[in-house]
Amino acid sequence: MLRKEQNDLLTQTGPGTPMGALFRSYWIPALLAEELPENDCAPVRVRLLSEPLLAVRDSEGRYGLVSEFCAHRGVSLWFGRNEECGIRCAYHGWKYDVTGQCIDVPSEPATFCRRVKLQAYPLVKQGDVLWTYMGAPEKRPPLPEFEFSLVPAEQTFTSKRLQECNWLQAMEGGIDSSHVSWLHRANLDSDPLFKGAKGNTYNLKDPKPVFNVVPSAGGLLIGARRNAENGNYYWRITPWVMPCFTMVPPRGDHPVHGHFWVPIDDDSCWAWSYEYHPSRPLTEEEVAAVRAGQGIHVEYTPGTYRPLANKDNDYLIDRAAQKAGKTYSGVSGIAMQDASLQESMGPIVDRTKENLVSTDNGIIMARFRLLIAAKNLADKGIAPPGIDSAHQKVRSAAIILPPDKPFKEVPGETFVARPEVAPVSV
Amino acid sequence: MLRKEQNDLLTQTGPGTPMGALFRSYWIPALLAEELPENDCAPVRVRLLSEPLLAVRDSEGRYGLVSEFCAHRGVSLWFGRNEECGIRCAYHGWKYDVTGQCIDVPSEPATFCRRVKLQAYPLVKQGDVLWTYMGAPEKRPPLPEFEFSLVPAEQTFTSKRLQECNWLQAMEGGIDSSHVSWLHRANLDSDPLFKGAKGNTYNLKDPKPVFNVVPSAGGLLIGARRNAENGNYYWRITPWVMPCFTMVPPRGDHPVHGHFWVPIDDDSCWAWSYEYHPSRPLTEEEVAAVRAGQGIHVEYTPGTYRPLANKDNDYLIDRAAQKAGKTYSGVSGIAMQDASLQESMGPIVDRTKENLVSTDNGIIMARFRLLIAAKNLADKGIAPPGIDSAHQKVRSAAIILPPDKPFKEVPGETFVARPEVAPVSV
Amino acid sequence: MLRKEQNDLLTQTGPGTPMGALFRSYWIPALLAEELPENDCAPVRVRLLSEPLLAVRDSEGRYGLVSEFCAHRGVSLWFGRNEECGIRCAYHGWKYDVTGQCIDVPSEPATFCRRVKLQAYPLVKQGDVLWTYMGAPEKRPPLPEFEFSLVPAEQTFTSKRLQECNWLQAMEGGIDSSHVSWLHRANLDSDPLFKGAKGNTYNLKDPKPVFNVVPSAGGLLIGARRNAENGNYYWRITPWVMPCFTMVPPRGDHPVHGHFWVPIDDDSCWAWSYEYHPSRPLTEEEVAAVRAGQGIHVEYTPGTYRPLANKDNDYLIDRAAQKAGKTYSGVSGIAMQDASLQESMGPIVDRTKENLVSTDNGIIMARFRLLIAAKNLADKGIAPPGIDSAHQKVRSAAIILPPDKPFKEVPGETFVARPEVAPVSV
Repeated sequence: MLRKEQNDLLTQTGPGTPMGALFRSYWIPALLAEELPENDCAPVRVRLLSEPLLAVRDSEGRYGLVSEFCAHRGVSLWFGRNEECGIRCAYHGWKYDVTGQCIDVPSEPATFCRRVKLQAYPLVKQGDVLWTYMGAPEKRPPLPEFEFSLVPAEQTFTSKRLQECNWLQAMEGGIDSSHVSWLHRANLDSDPLFKGAKGNTYNLKDPKPVFNVVPSAGGLLIGARRNAENGNYYWRITPWVMPCFTMVPPRGDHPVHGHFWVPIDDDSCWAWSYEYHPSRPLTEEEVAAVRAGQGIHVEYTPGTYRPLANKDNDYLIDRAAQKAGKTYSGVSGIAMQDASLQESMGPIVDRTKENLVSTDNGIIMARFRLLIAAKNLADKGIAPPGIDSAHQKVRSAAIILPPDKPFKEVPGETFVARPEVAPVSV
Repeated sequence: MLRKEQNDLLTQTGPGTPMGALFRSYWIPALLAEELPENDCAPVRVRLLSEPLLAVRDSEGRYGLVSEFCAHRGVSLWFGRNEECGIRCAYHGWKYDVTGQCIDVPSEPATFCRRVKLQAYPLVKQGDVLWTYMGAPEKRPPLPEFEFSLVPAEQTFTSKRLQECNWLQAMEGGIDSSHVSWLHRANLDSDPLFKGAKGNTYNLKDPKPVFNVVPSAGGLLIGARRNAENGNYYWRITPWVMPCFTMVPPRGDHPVHGHFWVPIDDDSCWAWSYEYHPSRPLTEEEVAAVRAGQGIHVEYTPGTYRPLANKDNDYLIDRAAQKAGKTYSGVSGIAMQDASLQESMGPIVDRTKENLVSTDNGIIMARFRLLIAAKNLADKGIAPPGIDSAHQKVRSAAIILPPDKPFKEVPGETFVARPEVAPVSV
Repeated sequence: MLRKEQNDLLTQTGPGTPMGALFRSYWIPALLAEELPENDCAPVRVRLLSEPLLAVRDSEGRYGLVSEFCAHRGVSLWFGRNEECGIRCAYHGWKYDVTGQCIDVPSEPATFCRRVKLQAYPLVKQGDVLWTYMGAPEKRPPLPEFEFSLVPAEQTFTSKRLQECNWLQAMEGGIDSSHVSWLHRANLDSDPLFKGAKGNTYNLKDPKPVFNVVPSAGGLLIGARRNAENGNYYWRITPWVMPCFTMVPPRGDHPVHGHFWVPIDDDSCWAWSYEYHPSRPLTEEEVAAVRAGQGIHVEYTPGTYRPLANKDNDYLIDRAAQKAGKTYSGVSGIAMQDASLQESMGPIVDRTKENLVSTDNGIIMARFRLLIAAKNLADKGIAPPGIDSAHQKVRSAAIILPPDKPFKEVPGETFVARPEVAPVSV
C-alpha cells in the first residue's frame, strides 16, 4: 500500500517530475529498428515520457529523435520531407538535421537558422532496438549492455506493444512471478515457447510460492520457491534492473524472455518483449511462433502496435474456453492475459487501497528502491542504480536446490550474462 | 425551474450525495434475470449509482453484487473464474463468495482471507428482475411488491435499455402524460401494443390536457383530463412511486406498461420497461411484438442493451416519414421517440432555464417530493415514501367521468393492485 | 510571438469574449444555401461562435437561425416539425417562427406564448451562402458585398469543410502566401484550377519571397514579391478583410478563389472556399473539378462536410507520392495540405513558442489589427474595419512590376471589385 503522494510520484514521468528525471537518467528503448527501415524513410511519431517526438533516419543512416513540431509556427514535422541529410518542414521548408539543429530557413539569411534548434535526443541502434537517452547531455551514460541486444541477430527477437495503463502497474505484473500458476496455468503446457519444460510441473503443482527478494547492484533478484521432488525446492529467480527491465526465468532450453515497460505518458506505456537464446540461434519454429504472437508476444491490430485483442473488444474473451480450462481468464495468450488484467485496474490504479501479501515482496521492494533513487537523484544528484553496464549484464535462472540452501548461495555468475553460455534452467 | 443547487442535488446519485442516499433506501432493479442465466455463468459488470459492481451467480444459484475489483491489487474480477461457490480472481486466485467475503487467498494462511471482504449488496430474483439494495444492511426494507413482478411469468415481460442522459430527465419524460398527443401521435393507432383502444381517440382529439396532480402515500397520482363525448371527461391517471417508478395508464385490454429509471452514473441511466396484464397471459403476438422492440421496448445494438437507434446515428431519423406523418419526430418507436428527445437535452439539462407550464405539474410536484424526502433523510433520518410495500401496489387507470366528478372521488381501490382483476381501462 | 493572454484573446470567440464581440459585429457565412434546399425542409443544427443553433426555412421560404433548444424544457428543436410557417417542437408542440418568437403553446392560453422567444439571428441568402449576423440588432450592418457572392450564379461556386482547429491558425495559413512555393509546389502545374499560369513558374523558381504588407481600409493588402525576368518582380497581392476573409491572387485566366474562416467553437472552424470569375461563367470542366474536390475544395466523408482525408486516417498520407515529388507533404490536394498541417499544430497552437520571420509579416499585422479592433470595440464601442461594404469590394492581383515600382503605387482600382472586369493576373 502506498500513500497517495507516493503513488503519484512513482506513476508520473513527464518533464519536471522526480520519476521523469529518474527515467531520463537511462538509455531506454524508443523504437524498433524496423520502424525506420532505410535511409530517408518516413519519420515516425513517438511519444515518450509525455514528450511528443519524431524519430528520423537521414540520408546517411544517422538516427535522431527530435521535437515533433517545427520551431517556426508549430506544425508537425511528421509531414516533412526527409531528404539530403535533414528533414524539411512541409510548410515553409525549414530544415533540421538529426540533432535538431536547423540548417536551412529558405526565406532568411543563413545566419538565422544557426540560432534555431529543436529539443533533440540521441537515437542509437543496438540489436533490434533504437535506444534513446532523454537526460542532460553531460550526464549521458555509455550505451546499455543488456545481453538480449548484444547477441548475434539470429539469436534474438524483440517486439513491442501498446499497453493502455501506467507503466508501473504493467511492470509490477512483470516482476510478479506468483501469478503464473494462476493466470497462465493453461499456457505452460500448450504455448510453443513454454511447453515441455520440467519446471512447468512445479509451477502447476505448487500454487503457493514462497518469495525471497534480494537487492542487487542494479535492482533486485526476486526468488520464487516452489516444492520439487524429495524435499528439494524449485527456484525461479527474476532479475529486475532499474527502472523497468525484467528477465523471466528460463524454462528448459527455450529462449529466455523479458520486458521493458517504457512510459508513453502517465496513462499508457510500451510493453517491450525480447526473446533470445544466449548460446544458439532461435529455430525457425521459434521465430515463426513469436512473429505469430505466441509466447509473450501478441498479434496486432493491422498497421499498428496495438494488440488485436484490446479493451475495446473485451480482449476477445472466450468464456467457453475459460470454462473448459483452455485458458484461465478466458483471454488467449500470455501477453494479453497480463495486459487485460493490468488495464482492467484503470489507467492508474489507486494503490492506497491495496491489500499486499507475501508474494508481493518483489513489488514492494521495487517501489521502495524507485522511491529512494528518485529522491536521491532529486535531492542530492546521486545517479541511480542500473546505469552501470555491469548492472545490466544479468541473467535469470531456474534451478533446483536442496532445502537448506538459500538461492543467495548460488554462485553469483549464475546471474551474470556470459556470452555463449546457456542459462541455468530446468 | 430549479435553482442550480436543487438541480445538482436531484441529479447526483453517487456515494455520499443526498439523492444517492435516497436511492440507497430502496430496492432497485439491477439486472435482468436473463443476464445471469445459469449457475456459474459469466459474471456481469454493472454500474449503479456511480459504483462499479459485478453481478455473480454461484454454483448453487446464489446471486450477489460485489465490488468489481479484487481487494488485492485492484484487478477486475470480471475476468474471474466463477466456480465452486465463489469467483476466483484470474490474477492470483483470490476467491470471494457472493457476499463479497474472501474465502481463499492461496498464498496466505487461511486466517488471512477472513479479514478481506469486498463491498457487496444483496441481489434477489423476483419476476424477470434481479433487484438490489445498496443501503445500510440494518435499514434493508422487505422486498418490493410491484404487481408486474409478482404476477405469473406468462403474464409479464420486462426489458431494459441504456439511456444516455441523467435519470431525472428520463423520468420526467415518463411522468409527462401530455406529450403523448404530440410525440407519439402517429403510434397510437399503429403500434400493436397501443392500437384499437377507444381512449386513443380522446388522446388524439384533445391535445390540451388539463392536469390534476394528487399526492399519494408513495408518491403521486397524476391525472390528465381530456374531453370525451357528451361533456364527459377522459381521465388518464399515472401513479408515480418514489423514487423512480411509473405506470402508464392502460388502453383497452392491452397489457399495462411502465418504467423504472435507475441511475448508472450522473450522465446515464437504465430505462427499465415492463409490460404485464394483471388478469391474463400475454398473447403470442404481444410477446413477439415486445421482443421485436414495439410498444415501449426497443431493438438493440447486437450484443448490448444499447438501442440500435442512438445518438451516434441520429436515432436513424427518417425525415420523409416525419413529413408524411408516419412518425411525429422522424424517429421510429415510442421508446426511442422519448429517449432521443431526452438525450438531446444533453447529459444533464440546465433546469435553471426552463419555462414550465400547467402540464408540467406532475414533474414539479415529483421534484418537490424528492427534494423534501432527500432532505428529511439527510437531516432527520426519516425513511422516504415508497419503501412500504403498500405504496408499491399501485395501478394506473383510464376512465370516463362526468364533468362534475374529480378523479380524486374515484374509488381508491381503482388505483390498487388486485390479483386477477383487470385494470380500469377505456 | 504572442503573450498567452493575447493568444487567448484572439482564439476565444464564445459569448462574452472580446473576440466573440468582434465576430458578432459582422455578417458571417452560416450555411451553404444547399443545406436548406426547399421550403419546410429539415432544419439543420449549426454551431457558430460556440452557440448551438438551428437553421430553419419556413413554408414561405423565410430563413431563420434560432437557439437549438426549446424554451420549455430544453429539448432539441432539430427533431421538430417544420410546417405552416414555424417549427413545432416534437415533444409538446410548442411552435416558433423563424425569428424565434413562440407562436403556439398548445396547452396554454394564447397570451402565454407571446412572452416566449428563443435567441435568434437573421439568416439571409446571398449567392450560394446563408449569412447571419449574431450581434445586437440595433448595430446590424447592411448585407455584405463580397464580389464572389454578388456575381451571377454561373460565375461562382462555394463550398465549406470542417477544419478541426481554431479559426486563427487556419486563417493565418490562408494569408501566408509564402508556403505555396513549398507545400503546394507539386500542385501548381497539375491541379486543373492552378496549372498553366505563367505566374506559377515564378512561384516555383523563387522560394524566398519578400513580403510587403500595407494596411487597407478593411484590413490588409499583403504583397509577396518574387523574381521575374529581366530584373522585374512578380507580385502576388492578397487582400485580407477583417475579421476572416481572404482572396488568393489569381493565376492566368483561372477563376479566383479565397476563404472565410468561421469559428464553430474555439477548437474547430468552418473553412469556406469560394471560386468565381468576375467576367465569365465557370466552365463545365471547372465546375466538375471543384465539385470533385480539386483546387482549394475537398472530397467529403459521405453525408458530412468533414473531409474524407482527416486526422483519423492521417489524411491518407502517401509516402511514395511524397518521395516521388508528386506531392510535397504526402497529402493530396491543396486544401487538405493546408488543413493537415494546421490541424497538426493541435486545436489551439501555443503562440508563445513561435519563431516568426519576415514572411510572417502579414500574419503579424493581421493579429495586431484584430487585437486593436477588439480592444477598441470593447473599450470604446468603435465599430471595427471590414463592416463597410466598400471594405468588402476587394480584389487580389498578380502583376509584374519593374524593380523600382512598389506595389503600393499600382493603381488603387486594381484592388477593387469591378463588375465584369477580369482580375489583374499573370
